[in-house]
Amino acid sequence: MNQIGIQLFLELKVCDKKLLDNFDHVKSSMISAAKISGQEILAESFYKFSPLGVTGIVSIPKSHLSIHTWPELGYAAVDIFTAGESFYPKDAANILIDSLSCNDPSITEIKRG
Amino acid sequence: MNQIGIQLFLELKVCDKKLLDNFDHVKSSMISAAKISGQEILAESFYKFSPLGVTGIVSIPKSHLSIHTWPELGYAAVDIFTAGESFYPKDAANILIDSLSCNDPSITEIKRG
Repeated sequence: MNQIGIQLFLELKVCDKKLLDNFDHVKSSMISAAKISGQEILAESFYKFSPLGVTGIVSIPKSHLSIHTWPELGYAAVDIFTAGESFYPKDAANILIDSLSCNDPSITEIKRG
Repeated sequence: MNQIGIQLFLELKVCDKKLLDNFDHVKSSMISAAKISGQEILAESFYKFSPLGVTGIVSIPKSHLSIHTWPELGYAAVDIFTAGESFYPKDAANILIDSLSCNDPSITEIKRG
């Protein structure tokens, strides 16, 4: 079986703690990142936790982006799963790194399929 | 920073092709797997593609499960992300492996945070 998709794991450390806890900002950043796929957004769900943190997922055809934030640690775990050639996941990753003011991001890529 | 969560990547190969294309079955399998976390399901979204394939995500607090299926290849890519100790992601993985009749599954675990 040939490679079907790729997945990026973003370990976003030393990010802006206030931004990581800002529901509207996290959501809009994720939507912006998903839109560069050029594909329809099938669904999105975002939740704000008390006292801290946001969980969010954006689903696009045979792909998704997810984020879980720990503002108290300045940390967010992001996944970008994509199949097909129209979606440039590293561009989406860079949108999130910039938007969340992450000063120690790392990106790991794995092949799926 | 200590480890915050773990993530399992399931490469599910040689699965039952009809089950991978059965929307209701994929959805109920994912919901069953999520429920063993004992946590509230915040959201779920599932989509059937034409002619083949299902994409689905279940969001639980600071955790999620995702699946993308390629029935024509007998393949599904599953992620299980979990933070905290109440969720046993390998149990969730085994539910999906059994439910989708996967004869060549592999599980890779990575630490997050």
